[in-house]
Amino acid sequence: MALIVQKFGGSSVADAVRVRNVAKIITDTYKAGNAVIAVVSAQGDTTDDLIDKAAELNPNPSKREMDVLLSAGEQMSASLMAMAIEQIGCPVVSLLGWQAGFQTSSGYGLARIRTIDTERMTRELDQKRIIIVAGFQGLCKYGDITTFGRGGSDTTAVAIAAVMHADKCQIFTDVDGVYTADPRKIKNAQKLSEITYDEMLELATLGAQVLNNRSVEMAKKYNVELEVLTSFQYGASPIDKMLLSEEQLAALTNTTTGRAGTIVKETVKMEKMLVRGVTKDNDAARISIVGVKDVPGVAFRVFSKLAAKNINVDIILQSVGHAGVQDISFTVSEANAAPVRALLENDFETVLVDTGVSKISVVGAGMETHPGTAAKMFEALYSEDINIQMIATSEIKISVLIDQADADKAVAAVHAAFFGKE
Amino acid sequence: MALIVQKFGGSSVADAVRVRNVAKIITDTYKAGNAVIAVVSAQGDTTDDLIDKAAELNPNPSKREMDVLLSAGEQMSASLMAMAIEQIGCPVVSLLGWQAGFQTSSGYGLARIRTIDTERMTRELDQKRIIIVAGFQGLCKYGDITTFGRGGSDTTAVAIAAVMHADKCQIFTDVDGVYTADPRKIKNAQKLSEITYDEMLELATLGAQVLNNRSVEMAKKYNVELEVLTSFQYGASPIDKMLLSEEQLAALTNTTTGRAGTIVKETVKMEKMLVRGVTKDNDAARISIVGVKDVPGVAFRVFSKLAAKNINVDIILQSVGHAGVQDISFTVSEANAAPVRALLENDFETVLVDTGVSKISVVGAGMETHPGTAAKMFEALYSEDINIQMIATSEIKISVLIDQADADKAVAAVHAAFFGKE
Repeated sequence: MALIVQKFGGSSVADAVRVRNVAKIITDTYKAGNAVIAVVSAQGDTTDDLIDKAAELNPNPSKREMDVLLSAGEQMSASLMAMAIEQIGCPVVSLLGWQAGFQTSSGYGLARIRTIDTERMTRELDQKRIIIVAGFQGLCKYGDITTFGRGGSDTTAVAIAAVMHADKCQIFTDVDGVYTADPRKIKNAQKLSEITYDEMLELATLGAQVLNNRSVEMAKKYNVELEVLTSFQYGASPIDKMLLSEEQLAALTNTTTGRAGTIVKETVKMEKMLVRGVTKDNDAARISIVGVKDVPGVAFRVFSKLAAKNINVDIILQSVGHAGVQDISFTVSEANAAPVRALLENDFETVLVDTGVSKISVVGAGMETHPGTAAKMFEALYSEDINIQMIATSEIKISVLIDQADADKAVAAVHAAFFGKE
Repeated sequence: MALIVQKFGGSSVADAVRVRNVAKIITDTYKAGNAVIAVVSAQGDTTDDLIDKAAELNPNPSKREMDVLLSAGEQMSASLMAMAIEQIGCPVVSLLGWQAGFQTSSGYGLARIRTIDTERMTRELDQKRIIIVAGFQGLCKYGDITTFGRGGSDTTAVAIAAVMHADKCQIFTDVDGVYTADPRKIKNAQKLSEITYDEMLELATLGAQVLNNRSVEMAKKYNVELEVLTSFQYGASPIDKMLLSEEQLAALTNTTTGRAGTIVKETVKMEKMLVRGVTKDNDAARISIVGVKDVPGVAFRVFSKLAAKNINVDIILQSVGHAGVQDISFTVSEANAAPVRALLENDFETVLVDTGVSKISVVGAGMETHPGTAAKMFEALYSEDINIQMIATSEIKISVLIDQADADKAVAAVHAAFFGKE
């Protein structure tokens, strides 16, 4: 008997039709002879609605009370899912984060998991019960409810899979796997059957938000095999059918085993693929400090200031100095653009901020042994007359900063270069 | 320094305006130098909405899962109230039932409080924090969330007042006290300044649903002084003003001390009042078993059957037998009418069910020493040509069963007889 952990996001459980659909996925897995622990997020827009309700009363509520409020979303979702499973006739119990044994730091709103006491979950599995765990929540040493931040239900699922030594952790989302590019934009985007943790991390960082980053890191650390797949096709309810294109429906089969998602694990077959995917990230701002005196310590002065404010810097480019001056450019997230300008404009004469940029990246463990990858990417951009503002590379990715207006064209060109034309 | 427990029902915290209004009541009480523990119900229709959501998935969900679901309503309400109080600038912490130390039986949906571990509440009060407790919920020995049933937040408040030895337990509702009759129907209904626990219990049973019965019983047992008052006038927001008539607004003053509610305690001044109130209860059905053989054991046969099904019987009337047969009549709640008919119609030839009846009662500890009370009541009904079908009396109440069509006229006539004409 295998132990399978399944996680269903907010859109997968948004209404009664979808809850029933997910209940069928869970009970089918159970009836096939598996032990099942399913982690659920709050339904649909519940979390956003609760945040709005809080804001109406207090523009700056304490994180402790926000955690009490928001954790109720997963609580409702978990109990409703349990009721839907009762209706199907399988034994089931819902557990809140603290009942499932999640002990966390007291960093309200962004708590880290300290330990998981598996006693209750083990006992319920021994009773042959399906367990529904309210995602994204735990209890700190002060006896207070804590939450893990957005995407925290992924973390709950992976942590349970790790600590319970589950055979597999299935993450059900509104997409049916990880693609070489956004399938809504690039028609011949290809679904990957396998991908490494590191590639998945780069793709997540670069804007392909299929899996929460912390959960991938945790899966890598504890070697939990992840599978990304969709809950929407399952059972093919009339509403589900409305949500998917005919091609998507045709491409999918209708059984648990038949629905091929994307497996995330340590090493994967190469499949002759140099790159795993092409991503676009518009959440970038380019900061340029122009005409800085070319003396030692300038870069240190800039980046230590940002580090002190906990501002992440991505690509950094320092021009070769001439005539005693140089330029320093770097990128931050758009939300950090204004704070960075405020931090630096007293120290430097000319600080330019450009939020109209986009970061295009290719990711793939294969590329490190294929020096032609960068050239192929740059050629694709050049052939579309797209100007590259900055370049950054790591072992498994190449990123370029370009004008945001060119972004979609750039993704299409680069994707075509690696995966063929549409 | 006094310790005051306050309880706010669902309509008192139904939206942001009312939550802010209640936050002001709580913080004003705190700023006046009191320690405050406030118990809140779920907002407005939250509980009903959650019940509907559950019913959509499962017409007969387990009570355990319903408790997980419904307790989230009070959880959200408590955290939102804490945020509103933070916004005012007072130290505050919300506690769920289990955090406040409520240990209960495992009778999901209708759990009884076993003990209350006061350690956390005492610690929070020592820190000079206002405590907001999520009402109606606790934890059973299996580590599961339980709820106390409808009106359970009253029980939470009284239990806290008892165990924390509070100086007063204030129950804020959508009425501003206990009246001699329904003030929406009887214009000169008078607000009682004081009433005994027993009178309150009779009034509650008889349909004047100001306070939950269990909470009054508990208050009596632990001698907790209750005060019934309204939260709506306080602060007199535009919305509150829309909810109350001008007379009600004028009759109320605008400070905590000035707003006179009704005090519920063991013994009260007599105030020359024979009766405390006149109530109407339409939730009654009259069952008549006609032409029963006049032999011993018939009544036993009927009522033991009902007792076995846990069906409460209220007024019982057995006719004097003649010609070897007699009639037995009794009342049950309307919901029980059909089950009772089903239980009895195989055993008896003629079982008549009339749900078009109403029970009119006068309640008052004064009446036991004034034999004229019943006569006065019957005279008032006779003068309006209202036929009395059944009569029941106790030390502090007289109830009559009449045609439901006459009910409002009957209440007006009886109220006028005891409290004067409008």
